[in-house]
Amino acid sequence: MPKGKKVCIIGAEGWGSAISTAVCKNVLNGKYDSRVHIYVYDELVRSQYLSNLMNEQHENIKYLPGIRLPKNLIAVNDLLEAAQSADILIFATPHGYVKSYCNILEDYVKPTAYAVSLVKGLEHTRDGELNLYSHTIAERLQIPCYSMMNANSAMEMAQGKLCEMTVGCDNDAHAKELITLFQTENCMVFIMDDVVGVELCNTLKDLVALSAGFIDGLRLGENARVACLHLGLKEMIRFIKNFNPTTKVSTFFESCGIANSVVSSFADKNVTFANNFVTSRKTIQEIEANLLNGRKLLGPIIAEEIYAYLEHKGMQKMYPLFSVIHRICQMEVSPQAIIDTLRHHPDMR
Amino acid sequence: MPKGKKVCIIGAEGWGSAISTAVCKNVLNGKYDSRVHIYVYDELVRSQYLSNLMNEQHENIKYLPGIRLPKNLIAVNDLLEAAQSADILIFATPHGYVKSYCNILEDYVKPTAYAVSLVKGLEHTRDGELNLYSHTIAERLQIPCYSMMNANSAMEMAQGKLCEMTVGCDNDAHAKELITLFQTENCMVFIMDDVVGVELCNTLKDLVALSAGFIDGLRLGENARVACLHLGLKEMIRFIKNFNPTTKVSTFFESCGIANSVVSSFADKNVTFANNFVTSRKTIQEIEANLLNGRKLLGPIIAEEIYAYLEHKGMQKMYPLFSVIHRICQMEVSPQAIIDTLRHHPDMR
Repeated sequence: MPKGKKVCIIGAEGWGSAISTAVCKNVLNGKYDSRVHIYVYDELVRSQYLSNLMNEQHENIKYLPGIRLPKNLIAVNDLLEAAQSADILIFATPHGYVKSYCNILEDYVKPTAYAVSLVKGLEHTRDGELNLYSHTIAERLQIPCYSMMNANSAMEMAQGKLCEMTVGCDNDAHAKELITLFQTENCMVFIMDDVVGVELCNTLKDLVALSAGFIDGLRLGENARVACLHLGLKEMIRFIKNFNPTTKVSTFFESCGIANSVVSSFADKNVTFANNFVTSRKTIQEIEANLLNGRKLLGPIIAEEIYAYLEHKGMQKMYPLFSVIHRICQMEVSPQAIIDTLRHHPDMR
Repeated sequence: MPKGKKVCIIGAEGWGSAISTAVCKNVLNGKYDSRVHIYVYDELVRSQYLSNLMNEQHENIKYLPGIRLPKNLIAVNDLLEAAQSADILIFATPHGYVKSYCNILEDYVKPTAYAVSLVKGLEHTRDGELNLYSHTIAERLQIPCYSMMNANSAMEMAQGKLCEMTVGCDNDAHAKELITLFQTENCMVFIMDDVVGVELCNTLKDLVALSAGFIDGLRLGENARVACLHLGLKEMIRFIKNFNPTTKVSTFFESCGIANSVVSSFADKNVTFANNFVTSRKTIQEIEANLLNGRKLLGPIIAEEIYAYLEHKGMQKMYPLFSVIHRICQMEVSPQAIIDTLRHHPDMR
């Protein structure tokens, strides 16, 4: 007897674990296999393997402490074992792992499966182009891959506080299925027929957040933050429309666009980082060591990828704010350079 | 010999005084009369009249303390004397004064003059319709009146920190003139050919700010704030498009729209009020007495005006968030009602 569709979550950091609380509840409606696999890159936490801890204590004490994980969530530390029989693959890993995970999986995923990517970031290919991770996954695994914009805080979502998610999906049947998997009483799921738009909004908002953090660090106040948001959103929209002309303006009015970008520019690791960067005059690496236990902050990496792309295309002048953010991060110019960039922005008339 | 065009600022609270710092500098370029009148509703401050204090000490110690006002700013405590020879009238008063000021001025303003309104709020007319204050001014004074969206903080603007203003103006010559009057090195002026759109954005953002403050008070976190912003902006855009179908989507992407709305939902008196309202369970009047020295907060008044209009038109169901904000302010429903409103919002699909 078929057990129903199988869901596998790839990655057990904050978002992978948080999403599992919704998915594991929703698979119990009978249409799905009630056991949800989560692939855990195993690491020692308090002298035990994280996957064992998750299966025994039903808690991810490293990445989502204090949240009771569902009993039908099965942590698996072998990627192939976790994913090869899955019908729906949810990628919730840092971007650096995507390609090697696809290398492992490429001949083993079900040909009828599809994927959803929560991965932020851009792949800067050797010919100077940019690739989205949803595209990388789709191409390598030869299955459709959609994008998903997570809300701001995984912890709040897992605590059952009100939140929204935007899914970029151009297949109606899959879109409906993803709503049944992710939506809960307190988690509202919006579907946009725009994989690229949703994914790029999710990624570029880190640049808006960095610029807001520089404003904070320079003690320029709330009016200047408005200027940053306004011109940052303009560059974001221009970039997305340029990259993907079919993106409609409605995408920006959904949660994934403006609302989430702007909230990120107040309450976000990138803001804290950029504020600290300005006031401490330490390097990115030093601040990462202090604030993030040595983990890499994504914003400056995205800024670098975008800058390389703009340089390759000769388009820096159309994106002065995006460009200056990268140059500030690299200490090529002082943080004050953001003020002149805003003052003389081409969107000023 | 003509002295050039005369500018009069009506109202000497925070924004009236802050704007004067830019205007008084810009009139010195020769095209204008170098003396700028500011009409001061006189009140005793430390046993002296505010108008005298401003003329003698060049500081508005009540509404903009610590800012040196320009010497070519002349405080006048008689409205007719201040305004009757003016070519450009800048209204920066609380909305409650607009009608009586127009009553005083209506037969005395120059027929070639025009006005700019920084006034927030809506006039709820007896037949159940809404009137914008720019329209009230234009109709009563029989001169064109444009709208202006001030940035968030008058004090920051007066301190010369970077900021933006959006002016809604459909007359090219006047638009250019207003740029020469308001723009400074650190204050960037954007012109939108949309008086109504700019004015309504400026007014409705208070509702978005109130909803965000309720979320704060309920301790619902950042994800829920995104939901509030997202659905609040949707109602705001729907309302403006319904009220004024010629408003273009581009208006919302300017500072007056999304950027400013969202910043207001973090750093705004309405947020502080709504947060306090939820946690203290005091009435609006009690909180105004505590937080605002008894002055009226505009957000709840705007919410009431909007609600009466929606009720009159039978449109509450299309604006559940705007409606519930009013009902929470009036203590007809508990602040928790905002959660269900977001969950079951018609823009959820």
